[in-house]
Parts: sequence; structure tokens; C-alpha cells
Amino acid sequence: MEYRFSKTLEGFQSSAVREILKLTQGKSIISFAGGLPAAEHFPLQAVGEAANRALAQGASALQYGLTEGYLPLRETMTKRMAGKGMNVKPEEMILTTGSQQVIDLLSRVYIDPGDVILVERPTYLAAIQVFQARGAQIVSVESDRDGMKLDDLAAKIAQYAPKMVYVTPTFSNPAGKVWSLERRKGLLEQCLKANVLILEDDPYGELQFDGGERYPSIFSLYDGGQAAGNPVVYTSTFSKIVAPGLRTGWALGDVEVIRNIAKAKQAADLQSSTMDQMTLHQLLEHFDIDQHIGVIQADYKGRMKLMASLLAEQNWEGVEWSEPKGGMFFWVELPEGAKAEDLLKLAVEEGVAFVPGSSFYAGNPVHNTMRLNFTHSDNDTLRLGMQRLATAMQKYQAAGRMSR
Amino acid sequence: MEYRFSKTLEGFQSSAVREILKLTQGKSIISFAGGLPAAEHFPLQAVGEAANRALAQGASALQYGLTEGYLPLRETMTKRMAGKGMNVKPEEMILTTGSQQVIDLLSRVYIDPGDVILVERPTYLAAIQVFQARGAQIVSVESDRDGMKLDDLAAKIAQYAPKMVYVTPTFSNPAGKVWSLERRKGLLEQCLKANVLILEDDPYGELQFDGGERYPSIFSLYDGGQAAGNPVVYTSTFSKIVAPGLRTGWALGDVEVIRNIAKAKQAADLQSSTMDQMTLHQLLEHFDIDQHIGVIQADYKGRMKLMASLLAEQNWEGVEWSEPKGGMFFWVELPEGAKAEDLLKLAVEEGVAFVPGSSFYAGNPVHNTMRLNFTHSDNDTLRLGMQRLATAMQKYQAAGRMSR
Repeated sequence: MEYRFSKTLEGFQSSAVREILKLTQGKSIISFAGGLPAAEHFPLQAVGEAANRALAQGASALQYGLTEGYLPLRETMTKRMAGKGMNVKPEEMILTTGSQQVIDLLSRVYIDPGDVILVERPTYLAAIQVFQARGAQIVSVESDRDGMKLDDLAAKIAQYAPKMVYVTPTFSNPAGKVWSLERRKGLLEQCLKANVLILEDDPYGELQFDGGERYPSIFSLYDGGQAAGNPVVYTSTFSKIVAPGLRTGWALGDVEVIRNIAKAKQAADLQSSTMDQMTLHQLLEHFDIDQHIGVIQADYKGRMKLMASLLAEQNWEGVEWSEPKGGMFFWVELPEGAKAEDLLKLAVEEGVAFVPGSSFYAGNPVHNTMRLNFTHSDNDTLRLGMQRLATAMQKYQAAGRMSR
Repeated sequence: MEYRFSKTLEGFQSSAVREILKLTQGKSIISFAGGLPAAEHFPLQAVGEAANRALAQGASALQYGLTEGYLPLRETMTKRMAGKGMNVKPEEMILTTGSQQVIDLLSRVYIDPGDVILVERPTYLAAIQVFQARGAQIVSVESDRDGMKLDDLAAKIAQYAPKMVYVTPTFSNPAGKVWSLERRKGLLEQCLKANVLILEDDPYGELQFDGGERYPSIFSLYDGGQAAGNPVVYTSTFSKIVAPGLRTGWALGDVEVIRNIAKAKQAADLQSSTMDQMTLHQLLEHFDIDQHIGVIQADYKGRMKLMASLLAEQNWEGVEWSEPKGGMFFWVELPEGAKAEDLLKLAVEEGVAFVPGSSFYAGNPVHNTMRLNFTHSDNDTLRLGMQRLATAMQKYQAAGRMSR
């Protein structure tokens, strides 16, 4: 048998993170590469109690359920979303297998091959993969620390007549940036005018370190944060505030958009796990999630501060980074001409891994950047990993491969 | 905002079952429509114990895991599959969000728009939806009670040069048929010769009523049941033998096929629920699944026999059906010219629902057929539902709409 795979397959590239993990197999490697949350914070006991409560409700916990998701969990989550200025009804929300599935399903019901999607530069690599597999033309908008530059956005909208813009405005992956209010409003205004859909990906929004006022979602900035007619589809996930293994995310949007996502989901997998959704519902009823998020925020802030001081100690010439205000990553810029891929090989030899930044560009990748995760390693591991990275960097510089 | 959905969306038709459920909302309707297993058999206590055992292993139960699925569960399931003549290694298996997701993911990595897929007549409606959304050309092969007719299969392969054949050879949905060994071998032989992939969907294979020898999967008929070079991708699910709410299915195939399905899954949802997969693994370690399946088989056989006797009592003129040897459905043929959709309207008024057979045809739907589920209703409900259906049928006949 000679298998004849589809042309679409070419779009499904195995991710750089996955290739790195292969390099590390069988070795004792400290990984700053993945985007894993700290397992110490998974509420194991509370999840166990919630699972038992879900099963105590009888067979419905194990039966088929609605494609749109378990209604009581949607009701709970619409209340939670209202607290963040997003005023939606349960039928304007769908529960999915993580927020990754929202990116995929929305692409299927909204994007045709050849359609243009605007993205940040850099942007989330697994979104690029989905859009590529869809046959979309992905165009980057010039971005600085405040978000997409509005003049370049206007130029790209005029030039490409895009169907959708994909953004992660709060603690973006990989660059850890926070969009300013002006840029959020500017994006919304331009997209409304040009009839362009916005996919607002917000997996990290709850992981804010400074305890100050929250950054408003772009969704909430539209007409009282209502779903009807909103050009924004907003998605988030329980992966970073409870646990990723329960694979539950959600999307908010106009009821027509949500209904069409549900049609695609029905064909894709009928529905997500009934058991996991009922467990999460019971967890939210009997567990102080906000107190729990506070604990995670404080701990992650501590890890971030430690990694910041370890980075500062290195005094690497020409290397730039800044402290993220939330999320899970440092974005480090090496001097021009440096290749993070080459540094990675040396780093893996020393026993530490990261993701070269080039994976996060839709085109014309920048090679002198790297993403470092600080949430999955404890303090001792952070210190040891940074020591190893420092050794790798010395070797890289000694080899004369770091241009000044 | 004027939403501009994709052309693909047109392929994602809401299922007929779903539309029927809308009709029944707020009414006390007995449903022979869905494909729901009997909730009485969900092993609630054993699942609860298994979930607790999974969580007792620590945070890994709630962390991200492999896209291919939890390795210990794949190891357990490869042993189980070996007992059915399918000799695969864990890397030749992927765990998915139900077997529905296998249909979707395989379509994405193997089918390009315009490719031809051959299907049975009738066939599983949610597979038709996936193939339509993929932009495939779906061509039905003439089928009788023994499976696809081999001469028509040969003619269609010659005429259309299909990329894939989709079949449910054991207790098919909706027709409940079992392919003969000769037809299974004939399909395999023809597809090998013409280099056509076979997707063998086997959700019901374990639900065999006669206790005799099992029907061999088409996968197992290829060269010692090995995965390497096998033209068959086999899929099944825990939905019918444990519970659908845990949303776990699996696919077996050549390692290249499985790897490519994994690439598509990574983009689609990263992975299925870690918690559900670990729970199922613990369940299989501590629970006698074969004894459990035996209980389900005996109970479903009883319900089937009851529905058969209730159907026989009606003496409906010109109505034909036969006892299924397994699975979950009766396939009932009304006299030519009858429209099951019209009968359904009367039936819903009486308080009983079923699925009109026309939904299960890829083209040229046959309207004088209906699918009746017997696994979700207990004996009293089966009796009452059949009474109601009989009343609806009387009214339908009295209206002169049933031609002779």
C-alpha cells in the first residue's frame, strides 16, 4: 500500500517544541521550552471531590451531552465572564477541548483557502499551524510592545481585505506583551469598519502579576460587552487556572457564530468530555477559584522575578528582555545575527532546552530570539537551568557565532 | 458586523437527529431516535474508583500529555486488539475524542477537496457530514445484507479512482447488517490492488448477540493483522462498552498514517483529556470489562427481542425488517412511496421519535425507511413507544399516504 496523503497535511507541521522534546528524550534536560503550568498547583484533592460529586449525580455524568457543552458549566462561566465585562448568555458560549479547538473550529467555519488572516509578529505557533492547514494566507502586522501598530494594521486591511485578525492581547505567547487600551480600541474600530472578525485568544489573562486593574478584553469594549453583533470571538481555557489535563476551554461570540462552531464541533468530535465538564462545574461550586488563582499569580510572579534576576546576572552583551507583567514566558532578544537554533543545540548538550523564537513568525522568521518558560520549573531548577544556559551561551560566544 | 462564514460551513449540516430532538423539546417524548447506550450499564462506581486511582498517581493525571494518547492505555489496548487478531504496537495506535474524531482527522490528512470516497448505502450520517465538509465527492456502492456488492465496488473503483472507502462492516449504523467474510476479503483485495485506503468504523463490534464466533475485522485479514502497510485504518470506541461521556476512541493503522493523524490532532485540540484516559486505564486494570460487555450483550439482546416481537405484533402491511445480530438499531423499510418524514410528524404528536432513513444516504435518499434504537429504552418504555408508533402508523395509513 502506498499511502496518498492530502495536500492539507503539508500544513500540519510538527511543532518546534515537539521536535525539541525529541532531542531531549532519554536525557536529563531542564525544559524552559514547553508551556506547562506548575503541576504543584493542580487542585488534586478538590478535583477528586468534584469528580465524585459529578458521578454522584448518576449516569448523566457518563452519557452523551450537548455539543455546545454542559449547560450548568456554561451558566456558571457566563456569570464569571460578566464579572470581566463580557455579558453573554449561555447560548452565546460553547465549551471545547481546550481553547486550541476554538482556533481550529472557527477557522473551519469562517476561513476559506486563500482568505487572509492578520496576526501579530511574533504570534502563537499552533495558531499559525491551524491557519496554514486551512490554506489561509497569513500576514503579519508590525507590532511593538503596545500591540499591533495601528497604521500598519490600517495599511494591511486596505491592502489584503482580510477575513480575520488573530490576537493575544494580554500576556501574549511568545512575547509576553500587553496591548495598550488605545491599541485595543483601535483594532476594534478598524475591524468593525472593515467588517473583519477578531479572534481574541486569552489563555493567560488571569495570570496577572501586579494585582492592579485588569486589562479589558477587546470583546468587552464592544457595545457593553454584548455578544450580538460583536466582531470579536473571545476564547479562554481552564488549562492555566485549574489544569490542562481536563481539556476544557470556551468561546464567546454572536449566537450565529457559536451555532456554526457547534456544527463544526458536532462533525469533529460530537462533544467534549461530559465527565470533565461536570467535574469542573462541581469544582467551581465548591472551591474558591479566585483564591486559587491568587496563589498561582503570587507563585508565578516569584518565579518570574527569580528568572529575571538570573538573566540580569548574566550581563550578556547585546541581549535584551523585559519583565513580563503576567503569563508564562520571557521573550529574549539576542544580538542581530545570532541564531537561537544554534544556541539551542549547545544548550541541549548542557542539559537545558528552550524554544527558538523563529517558530513564532508567520513569515520572514527572526532567528535571534528565544522563548523561556518560567512556570514549570521550581526555584532550584530555574537556577540550575540558567547556569546551564549560561554555559551554553559562553560556548556560543566563544565560537564567535554571536555577532555584535 | 456582517459575518462572512466559510464555504466549508455549508457542508456542516446540523444532523437530522438533532433537528428531531428540537421537535421534542418540552414534550414527554419516547425517543427511538438517538444512538444512546443504556445508562443503567454505566459502571459508575468502578469509574469513580478508577478516577480516584488516577488522581492518586499525582499531578500527571491533570497535566498535558502526549497528543498520541496516554501510553499505558495504548499498551493495554494493543493487547486487547491482539486478542481480536489485530497485532499493533502502541505507536501504531492513537487515542482520540471518540471515534468520530478519527473520521474527521483522517479525512483532513488523507482527503483533498474533490477526492472520491466510496460508502455503503445507507451509511453513518455523521461520516457523510465530515466528508461533505471536506469537499469530498461521496459515491455510494450498491449494498445488500452481506455488505457492498463486489461487482459494483469494482465498477466504482474503475470509474471513480477513489482515495478511500468508508465502511462499518459489523452491525452497521443504520442498517444493522454484518458483512460476510467473502465481502470483507473482496473489499480488502480490491483496495490493495487499486491502492485505496479503507476506513473501518467498528463502534458496535462488541455488541454481538449470538455469543458465537466473532466476525473478523477487515484490518485483521491483512497479512497477520499487522499495521505496517495495512490499507485499513481501524477505529473503535469506549462509548458503547464503558460510557460515551468519557469521549475516548482509538485508531489503528500504519505508523505513518497514525503519525499524520497525530499532527492533525495536535492542531485540532493538542490532545484528548488526560484525566479520562488515565481513568479508563485504571478501570481496565481493576474491572472485568469482558464480563461487563457480556451483561450489556445479554440485556441488549433482550431489548432487541422485545422490540422484534412488538414489531411483529403490528402486522403492518408491506413493512419489512429483520432482527439485527448485534448493535443498537432496527432498520425498518416501509412500503414504496411512503415517507418516513411524514410518519415522524405524526409520531412526534403521539409522543415517540425515530430517525427517518433518508439522512443516511450520500445521494438519492430513500424516504421509505426508518431507524429505531432499542438500547436506550427499558422494556416498559419500548412497549409504550411502540404503542404510540402504532397509533401514528394507523393515522398515517388512514390518511391514505401509505401506498401499497
